[in-house]
Amino acid sequence: MSTLVFGHKSPDTDATMSAIIWAWYLTNVLGGDAKPVLLGQPNTEAAFVLKHWGFEQPEIIADVSANDRVVIVDTNNPAELPPSINEATIMAIIDHHMLVGGLKSKTPINVVMRPLACTATVMHDIMGENVEKLPREIRGAMLSCIVSDTLEFRSPTTTDHDRIVAEKLAADLGVSIPELAAAMFAAKSDVSSFSDAELLRMDSKEYSVAGKELRISVLETTAPAVVLNRKAALMAAMPEVAQADGADQVLLFVVDILREEATLLVPNDLVKQMAEASFGVKVSGDTVVLPGVMSRKKQIIPSLKL
Amino acid sequence: MSTLVFGHKSPDTDATMSAIIWAWYLTNVLGGDAKPVLLGQPNTEAAFVLKHWGFEQPEIIADVSANDRVVIVDTNNPAELPPSINEATIMAIIDHHMLVGGLKSKTPINVVMRPLACTATVMHDIMGENVEKLPREIRGAMLSCIVSDTLEFRSPTTTDHDRIVAEKLAADLGVSIPELAAAMFAAKSDVSSFSDAELLRMDSKEYSVAGKELRISVLETTAPAVVLNRKAALMAAMPEVAQADGADQVLLFVVDILREEATLLVPNDLVKQMAEASFGVKVSGDTVVLPGVMSRKKQIIPSLKL
Repeated sequence: MSTLVFGHKSPDTDATMSAIIWAWYLTNVLGGDAKPVLLGQPNTEAAFVLKHWGFEQPEIIADVSANDRVVIVDTNNPAELPPSINEATIMAIIDHHMLVGGLKSKTPINVVMRPLACTATVMHDIMGENVEKLPREIRGAMLSCIVSDTLEFRSPTTTDHDRIVAEKLAADLGVSIPELAAAMFAAKSDVSSFSDAELLRMDSKEYSVAGKELRISVLETTAPAVVLNRKAALMAAMPEVAQADGADQVLLFVVDILREEATLLVPNDLVKQMAEASFGVKVSGDTVVLPGVMSRKKQIIPSLKL
Repeated sequence: MSTLVFGHKSPDTDATMSAIIWAWYLTNVLGGDAKPVLLGQPNTEAAFVLKHWGFEQPEIIADVSANDRVVIVDTNNPAELPPSINEATIMAIIDHHMLVGGLKSKTPINVVMRPLACTATVMHDIMGENVEKLPREIRGAMLSCIVSDTLEFRSPTTTDHDRIVAEKLAADLGVSIPELAAAMFAAKSDVSSFSDAELLRMDSKEYSVAGKELRISVLETTAPAVVLNRKAALMAAMPEVAQADGADQVLLFVVDILREEATLLVPNDLVKQMAEASFGVKVSGDTVVLPGVMSRKKQIIPSLKL
């Protein structure tokens, strides 16, 4: 049975494409037998990237079983993985997030986590000279992951190394990064078809801050007005989404990729207090602009307090 | 303040020397400022290896604080680390054990875990061509770690890669592996000065099996009679050690390095049942010989059941 390779729930470009990249590499270079799968519907950017480089959308799975051998990419957080993840045989983990704890393996395994902007860059480095063996579409997938997670090098998570790798890949492929980025961000910004609850869960991670369980949602867009025009409905949907997901509060940050700022929706006093304590701003009204804030991992999570 | 580099409690050769190796590398090659420390008295083999290659014994620390930056080597198990480990800033983890879960980092960090016989081999591979910059005593420390954790290539944890690295290091150093191993194992076997309780805790890890908390102790020796002649006193000391450490039972495996077998002490029906269920043997009397069993990680832990 093929080893299953998957990223986190609510798959974005890096979670989707780095699973495809690594399954290809395991099968075609390392001589294994691996299959990429998804833990949910890919977001609109990931769907665009799949089509752009000519990939079929991988099968979506709901859980894993004790018989499965799995490789986890782009997360190490059990909350973002299938419910039975610790029943399966975890073969390897490749990630670029903070260590959350909770995953267990039955035997010694390969784990590579590096403080880089995206999982695809970590994979690039693991592959070493084997990168030269990658076909065009796999290199394209890698480039798209870096463009996505760095927001075209605007995010403070971007390292010099991510940029160098992306520029080398783009040059080899004859691809214009600004054109690819514009098309990807347009796809990501096309969220009009989603319900309010879907938007709140689209790019969302659960964290505990000062005893509060938070669903921290980020919508990266080049057209923030499309989202912000729906702010009343989004705020109205927050309590139900929070309750259904076992959280105390949903925080929605609408990241304007081009202006390099986030707008946080402020539905109540808890979020107001949190915004003021965390980001040193004074909140009046139901939104607050946070200049320069683009990264949940690097800016939002480390700042959050009450 | 220097970054603290340390391995697990009850430090053996790999935990002691891989901390020294990595602190040296961080400071002298990567341009950092790091200091190796220990979480307890090194075992007799590690003490021999320190002296053999001309190292001072590192300082022993009891805990870490929120101000400390730390690198963890040769474990990823919070139970084997300082009580306040998750208060400190974990910078990196380098290990070769199964993933236990429980460690957390505040930001993305470097984690490298590989299914190799010892941490020093993982470090060797991370260093790449920089291995050529290592001074004699650091290469010697690396070789000693591999000899120790592989029991001179006898343990089933040994990979071809560990052996190749060790043989290259030995050739470069002009060192005879059999002579080094004999001296190290003689030092490890010299346990006459330890109390029964000290012996039970010397090389010991805590695991949960079928709802029982087990302290699984392994004594690797070329002179098993020295330990087995004390079996009555060791078994008598088990309940008190178990109770003091919050465990239900101590299991003591005396590994005969040269005969490549383990003798398990069987003080009661629980251990008898566990031995028979786990290793397919019939127990009569207060010990049972397990042919070929040398590795806690690869053979004992994966087999244990009730």
